[in-house]
Amino acid sequence: MHKVRVIEYKNGRLFLLDQRILPLRIEYIEIKSCSAAAAAIKDMAVRGAPAIGIAGAYAYCLAVREKNFSAPADLMKHMNKSSAMLIKARPTAVNLKWAVGKMHKKLFEVKNQGIEKIKTELEREAESIMNAQVKADLKMGEYGAEALKKIKKSGLSVMTHCNAGALATGGEGTALGVIRAAYRNDILEMVYASETRPRLQGARLTCWELISEGIACTLICDSLAASLMKRGMIDAVVTGADRIAANGDTANKTGTYAHALAAKQHGIPFYIAAPLSTFDFDTPCGEEIEIEYRNAGEVTEINGKRIAPEGISVINEAFDITPAKMISAYITERGIIKNVRQLQ
Amino acid sequence: MHKVRVIEYKNGRLFLLDQRILPLRIEYIEIKSCSAAAAAIKDMAVRGAPAIGIAGAYAYCLAVREKNFSAPADLMKHMNKSSAMLIKARPTAVNLKWAVGKMHKKLFEVKNQGIEKIKTELEREAESIMNAQVKADLKMGEYGAEALKKIKKSGLSVMTHCNAGALATGGEGTALGVIRAAYRNDILEMVYASETRPRLQGARLTCWELISEGIACTLICDSLAASLMKRGMIDAVVTGADRIAANGDTANKTGTYAHALAAKQHGIPFYIAAPLSTFDFDTPCGEEIEIEYRNAGEVTEINGKRIAPEGISVINEAFDITPAKMISAYITERGIIKNVRQLQ
Repeated sequence: MHKVRVIEYKNGRLFLLDQRILPLRIEYIEIKSCSAAAAAIKDMAVRGAPAIGIAGAYAYCLAVREKNFSAPADLMKHMNKSSAMLIKARPTAVNLKWAVGKMHKKLFEVKNQGIEKIKTELEREAESIMNAQVKADLKMGEYGAEALKKIKKSGLSVMTHCNAGALATGGEGTALGVIRAAYRNDILEMVYASETRPRLQGARLTCWELISEGIACTLICDSLAASLMKRGMIDAVVTGADRIAANGDTANKTGTYAHALAAKQHGIPFYIAAPLSTFDFDTPCGEEIEIEYRNAGEVTEINGKRIAPEGISVINEAFDITPAKMISAYITERGIIKNVRQLQ
Repeated sequence: MHKVRVIEYKNGRLFLLDQRILPLRIEYIEIKSCSAAAAAIKDMAVRGAPAIGIAGAYAYCLAVREKNFSAPADLMKHMNKSSAMLIKARPTAVNLKWAVGKMHKKLFEVKNQGIEKIKTELEREAESIMNAQVKADLKMGEYGAEALKKIKKSGLSVMTHCNAGALATGGEGTALGVIRAAYRNDILEMVYASETRPRLQGARLTCWELISEGIACTLICDSLAASLMKRGMIDAVVTGADRIAANGDTANKTGTYAHALAAKQHGIPFYIAAPLSTFDFDTPCGEEIEIEYRNAGEVTEINGKRIAPEGISVINEAFDITPAKMISAYITERGIIKNVRQLQ
């Protein structure tokens, strides 16, 4: 499964695997402009913190091709605007800001070298961001599997929330990278995937990734997790992250905090698997992380059909904050980090 | 809204409001036999612990009318079978067993008085079970509102899970009976209804009951609750119950335990509102309560459309157990009970 390309860029054309319709259909959409990329990110055709970073980097490449710029200053002006538009497509995952920032820095370096060179250098930069993520996933997998082995040498049951898999990174995934490595190391018995309302990334994406590789997986409603933990059915929890503040507080898909609370209560290790690009040392703590509010329809309608009564108010926060004290460790490409201050 | 009849019995005919299609359509189905009633209970056309008790009692009345019994012994034999069938339709909520048991006891008392008298007495018994629930709801409301007033005299935000409302009891509801009374007493500012996957009783039923009475209500995904509690947005949690063991451990809709854990963590009072018929002193503790497993399709399909990949394993437990130590108090028609042993 992780052979399926999530983001494809070829000869100035960008294609995204449309994750909104998975696992029912495998379809790619061509993204023809930077604003179309921002819309696709916002609407979650592509999602997952590292993947939207990569998509953002390639969207940046598209933006450079949108006009014939008469002078470097015109290009820079256009790209300042394009960068801002991309970054605000989804505010919580810092990887998008990080990747677009990296692209912008590269442009600044090469802005006087002529448009063809600029295009090449930027495409190379985007490719390098993507390749680095693939490598980071493998390293996280190695380190993570080592950590899990200390819990149980075999027969391990791991729960994950949302999708922090190949679909979220373009590589093996962060949390699912760890789970894949645990599987290859014969540690793993069962993955519990919580469905992850409202967008059901656990049910739709994580289950699909895992069963198509023959990794045993059981789907549960988000609200069942605590009960399984109480009965000793879950040995560890591993999730991804959208942003990790300087003090270790972590923004991740809504529901992560409830799982972390339950894990803590039952003495179950709770790991965050995330590349260094997800750490945001400019944000001191979780309270400072901007949480994305998404539209009510994600909760009140399913498959285009209304489930809740008309006129009902909804709070649909896409992410929640798990305090550092509830996180056993962070699995990064540089190893297992107990305290985020170590990285600074 | 609580004027809508949930269960209607007239001249030997039983009608149930079909809760599976609420709030999109208000439709009644006629239940023509005891086995059809058992199927309707199992499929959740009628649901909620007290309501399935009442439906079971009326189904019992139908069963008595199914044949011309030549002797009381024949009738008793038929009713032994019918009772067993009804009780096993849903195993967790004790009210069903309790109500059918009450009907069976009444039959035993009057079995030699001729079939017409038997029918009349049984219908009277079923009606009395229903009426007692309506009264119990009002008492729970009074006591519950008093308890909530001690938390905050006004501007109170209460969370509830699943639907423990008019639709679940035929009266004002258990948890929603308390919430309605709090509303009448001007204590209430907001009700947070957690959607309650997989069957979405919170989104479909609780929201419908509340907004149609003008009670301010906000729908959230189950997994958002802990995050709102952390930010001080919820002052109290009130849920219903399907069975309360002798030690106070409580079976209720899956997700209740996770909410109770989060409430405990954040110092938020957590109440169970339930009539005495929900207390099961024959079951010593939560581990002894039979938990109903429901079919995987409830999780893998929504509105008849597949969401998860084919072949995925699912655990779909309809209920979880909240230990007594996490429950601040039980709101009953006899008052606020801190320790269930008081009732025995």
